[in-house]
Amino acid sequence: MFPKKISPDAIFQAIKLVKQRSPLVHNITNFVVMQTTANILLAVGASPIMANAIEEMDDIVSMADALVINIGTLYSSLLDSITKAQDIALQYQLPVIFDPVGAGASKFRTETAKNILNRGVSILRGNASEILSLQNNLVNNKGVDSCHETEQALEIAIDLSNQYNCCVVISGHKDIICYKNLTYYLTHGTPLLTRVTGMGCSATALIGAFAAVVKDLSLASIYAMATLGLAAEKAEKLAQGPGSFYPILLDTLYKLELADFVNFHCELA
Amino acid sequence: MFPKKISPDAIFQAIKLVKQRSPLVHNITNFVVMQTTANILLAVGASPIMANAIEEMDDIVSMADALVINIGTLYSSLLDSITKAQDIALQYQLPVIFDPVGAGASKFRTETAKNILNRGVSILRGNASEILSLQNNLVNNKGVDSCHETEQALEIAIDLSNQYNCCVVISGHKDIICYKNLTYYLTHGTPLLTRVTGMGCSATALIGAFAAVVKDLSLASIYAMATLGLAAEKAEKLAQGPGSFYPILLDTLYKLELADFVNFHCELA
Amino acid sequence: MFPKKISPDAIFQAIKLVKQRSPLVHNITNFVVMQTTANILLAVGASPIMANAIEEMDDIVSMADALVINIGTLYSSLLDSITKAQDIALQYQLPVIFDPVGAGASKFRTETAKNILNRGVSILRGNASEILSLQNNLVNNKGVDSCHETEQALEIAIDLSNQYNCCVVISGHKDIICYKNLTYYLTHGTPLLTRVTGMGCSATALIGAFAAVVKDLSLASIYAMATLGLAAEKAEKLAQGPGSFYPILLDTLYKLELADFVNFHCELA
Repeated sequence: MFPKKISPDAIFQAIKLVKQRSPLVHNITNFVVMQTTANILLAVGASPIMANAIEEMDDIVSMADALVINIGTLYSSLLDSITKAQDIALQYQLPVIFDPVGAGASKFRTETAKNILNRGVSILRGNASEILSLQNNLVNNKGVDSCHETEQALEIAIDLSNQYNCCVVISGHKDIICYKNLTYYLTHGTPLLTRVTGMGCSATALIGAFAAVVKDLSLASIYAMATLGLAAEKAEKLAQGPGSFYPILLDTLYKLELADFVNFHCELA
Repeated sequence: MFPKKISPDAIFQAIKLVKQRSPLVHNITNFVVMQTTANILLAVGASPIMANAIEEMDDIVSMADALVINIGTLYSSLLDSITKAQDIALQYQLPVIFDPVGAGASKFRTETAKNILNRGVSILRGNASEILSLQNNLVNNKGVDSCHETEQALEIAIDLSNQYNCCVVISGHKDIICYKNLTYYLTHGTPLLTRVTGMGCSATALIGAFAAVVKDLSLASIYAMATLGLAAEKAEKLAQGPGSFYPILLDTLYKLELADFVNFHCELA
Repeated sequence: MFPKKISPDAIFQAIKLVKQRSPLVHNITNFVVMQTTANILLAVGASPIMANAIEEMDDIVSMADALVINIGTLYSSLLDSITKAQDIALQYQLPVIFDPVGAGASKFRTETAKNILNRGVSILRGNASEILSLQNNLVNNKGVDSCHETEQALEIAIDLSNQYNCCVVISGHKDIICYKNLTYYLTHGTPLLTRVTGMGCSATALIGAFAAVVKDLSLASIYAMATLGLAAEKAEKLAQGPGSFYPILLDTLYKLELADFVNFHCELA
């Protein structure tokens, strides 16, 4: 049964598991954030690999502990690699985390995102505009940035979660996590996260690291969003702007202590 | 009519416009600088998108506020995407900013750069060696770094500006902006900008952000080069080297104030 | 004849040569580390270029001072570019430095790495698992991270060095450099280097910069590993974690002084 209350200690134990097991997180991801995502995963102790070639999908997915798919700089020949990676991940019952970057910004991305969902994912994470576009074909003229609040996407997130039988995470000012008719709200983080590229993509990758060591998909998602959000709040206090925020965030993720989670707050709707 | 004197306040008002309107800047750019360019654009408040796939050129260019083309890691299938993006941008009268990275380092780049110019761009920005190579087929054995002073490329820049009816920006120790028989000199910046990868590319992307909100191409170029140059001067004072310079530059761009522009100096030749 | 003892001054003179000559280092490298590698090379004064297109291999390799090949995000059409680059480099007697990133993580990488070795490289640098996989087809389930100590790969490194007539560098807690029946041990560095993506790839690129100005392949490798290791030790003292470590490392590389090398220690086995 799902816990009514999530304790700081539960999150911290999960982080300790990530550091101990150093799960191999395979990222099929975009070229803008590859470095950032790898550094975020390394900071929490996970072992990232980035591989897009279809020739090595079989070998790499079959030994990975989680698969992260991100369509932020999609190109046509990547579609076959994604399909193959999903097939193998499903066969090995690997958690598949999907980030539909820019869904709504082009029909190419929106359609590809729907195809990926149809083949099966464990967790879908996007901003509100991306989540909305996956059902109502909304066009987002802000590209990869959101032009909606997360609450506006809540109903569609619940629908998507039921339709595709996956956990749905909408990230934003307020994070929302929906799965199996339960909805959780988290309000950690800082607007600085929207002024550094790849922070959403890094949230998705972190969910991958936690899903590799925590079986429950909602809990893995909550732990990851809480970790990023609370580390970001701590980093913001020391930062002078988005430039210094990013290295301080990595330092903070690297040195997380139980005390960093005492302010954790999560609401069950 | 073009202003004889550009005030600090004019630049600052333009930056405020960028922050207010958060223009969508579409970057077809190289893999080395994607992250850096995105972070520079986010720091000034613009909304960057990176997309290379021909399948989404129509959707993304048609809703973008500026198109930035950069050939720093060119590959053959990108040529069709660039052509399509230019066609749509011209149709929507979008500003097209072009960065011929490494023109002169290979015939492939030099020829591609000329083809892009022939199809039509609004603003061309390069270092002196790149600009020179676009007319006299100069071979640059320093690769993507310049082996000339900007003044050496002045005459050819004026020729290119007339031939292709575009604003030409030569960046270097002294920045030169030529358009419609007017030539401006800016001397802001620091040599540290040459020790961090992607600073030239970021200048080009910043011109895109300004050209999205300021109609006059010379003014947009001057505002962008002044913003980067003055922020770099301020950042240099706090930096210990190129590593700390880059995050401090982002912080500075994020928090620009009118006072940061009081030393602005621009000379009309 | 090879020096029995390498003095701090010898390393520092080599760094001064890099700064003076600013060698053009051509990198055919992976998308995760392109920016990081470029920044490391710029920090020591080299001139990096990243180019993967077969159309420009001839022009760029023929004017480069060193060629660095890295298969961290391999894709099939890159194989032809790599082959062509190697052919031209061999023709111009250019040092070719090879980083078999993720060899052992997939048959595609392991086989490609062997083919590259067969065509001829000057220096091979990898972690212990990568080096091991090049002879015994070991499968590395840690992806691009090592699951072996460098000493475990010593014998195979010596074999590879003899078989392919190249200098072999195994990097790790203890760095090992083997060539022509001589084996050197270096113990500089910090575990933080494993928590920042691209540090191994940057070591390879640095070897390229040194090999461009120092003819002896063992010496070039030792100088590069010593430079990165000693700079990392200095940076670690000022860093709060992997996030602040990376910019401080760049600052340190940019400002290296003879005094930074006084603790240099290298053992001949």
